[in-house]
Amino acid sequence: MSIIKKAKKKINSAILIIGNEILSGRTQDLNVSFISNWLNINCGISVLEVRIIPDIEKKIVSNILDMSKKFKYVFTTGGIGPTHDDITALSISKAFKVKYNFNKEAYKILANYYGKKNFNDSRKKMAKMPSGSKLIYNPSSAAPGFMIKNVLCLPGVPSILKSMMPNLKKFLITGPKINSHTISLLTVESRIADYLTKLQKKYVKKIDIGSYPFFRLGKVGVAVVIRSVNKNLIKKCATELLKTAKQNKIKIYPL
Amino acid sequence: MSIIKKAKKKINSAILIIGNEILSGRTQDLNVSFISNWLNINCGISVLEVRIIPDIEKKIVSNILDMSKKFKYVFTTGGIGPTHDDITALSISKAFKVKYNFNKEAYKILANYYGKKNFNDSRKKMAKMPSGSKLIYNPSSAAPGFMIKNVLCLPGVPSILKSMMPNLKKFLITGPKINSHTISLLTVESRIADYLTKLQKKYVKKIDIGSYPFFRLGKVGVAVVIRSVNKNLIKKCATELLKTAKQNKIKIYPL
Repeated sequence: MSIIKKAKKKINSAILIIGNEILSGRTQDLNVSFISNWLNINCGISVLEVRIIPDIEKKIVSNILDMSKKFKYVFTTGGIGPTHDDITALSISKAFKVKYNFNKEAYKILANYYGKKNFNDSRKKMAKMPSGSKLIYNPSSAAPGFMIKNVLCLPGVPSILKSMMPNLKKFLITGPKINSHTISLLTVESRIADYLTKLQKKYVKKIDIGSYPFFRLGKVGVAVVIRSVNKNLIKKCATELLKTAKQNKIKIYPL
Repeated sequence: MSIIKKAKKKINSAILIIGNEILSGRTQDLNVSFISNWLNINCGISVLEVRIIPDIEKKIVSNILDMSKKFKYVFTTGGIGPTHDDITALSISKAFKVKYNFNKEAYKILANYYGKKNFNDSRKKMAKMPSGSKLIYNPSSAAPGFMIKNVLCLPGVPSILKSMMPNLKKFLITGPKINSHTISLLTVESRIADYLTKLQKKYVKKIDIGSYPFFRLGKVGVAVVIRSVNKNLIKKCATELLKTAKQNKIKIYPL
């Protein structure tokens, strides 16, 4: 049975990236920004913390226990493939003190995908997961992800992960979406900082104003990002900002 | 006086990314891979954990205290600019229970950079830091980073951060560099997983073998990454892997 609920309050979550290749700098992570955007747009879920850790069992165990207590949901990426360094499923079984064994449905999916002749031990390993897991189906390469308690385990390869995200939705309680509006001003941060401080104070706790310097095609500017659940409040705040910019002869980018 | 020491043992570190824009998915982080690669190549320092947290004082305080205990060095990025959401320096002062006040040298650098007339309060704020900090000079936009205890604070803008990295070196004890060699095989992970497990067991604790699927120009393959302090051992392991690939008629990419 799928759980579909809608909460009025914001729903928080965290991401645990498991993989030496991200920590060593060999591979550029692309999953954090994708997951975070997807969760906000599709489920109204905010990511409040990300951790990147190596493929070491005791690190996975301690982080899963800590994060699953602190957050409504924890999304993991990486370590659910067929090789020796794929130890996410085993480690999470140990964290939650449940058995690590074959999931019958996952076993069937994989046996069917590879065919009896090619279904070797490494491939079978991808059907082993914490006892009691629910499957997150994988339309691109068959091997499913899984959900156990409030932890949802996804693969590390971005294209496969992306294809699986829609199959997460049925497991998640959704919250109100955070809307955002960006105004790019052709100025430097230190010129508008005092004004932004006042503006943030005026709307404290209702909207969140961030300011991010940019350099684009030789132009120096600041992207002011206004974020809130309330679209009207964003509009009101944006109008004020634009008015002040005009008064101070600060141009908007693109011109 | 600069501290230059060379350690025989591996030196570990962690990165703390401070910024709502990374967590929300608005901005793609590029600093983790740059810092990690730079530290390994230039200083023989490994990054063993990364955390991404929001611009919230109590989160910065608790993570700084936790991470500075666990790791030899902690590198932070973000939150040292002139705006209201730049609270890294203040939060770290609170974490270490030291005063948050003007650093005389930083004040001089910034006063000189902006000129007396334009040195407003927001710009002055960038000279405030934990008492006792050492400056990390900034050749691109003047505002310096700082080091306090074993925590080194850098800006979030990647181009500015990159320009400052060489100025970190004098503060760091360096260790042996981790070398790496990648062999890209035109096969799938689940076909070579058993062999890689055996190979990893043979060289356990001496080398680290990772395997990462790739899709390039229509080719499906696996990048096998062999990492170790010992270059000769990497060569020996790579030769074995190539021999086994040949015996099994697995081609090497690029052909």
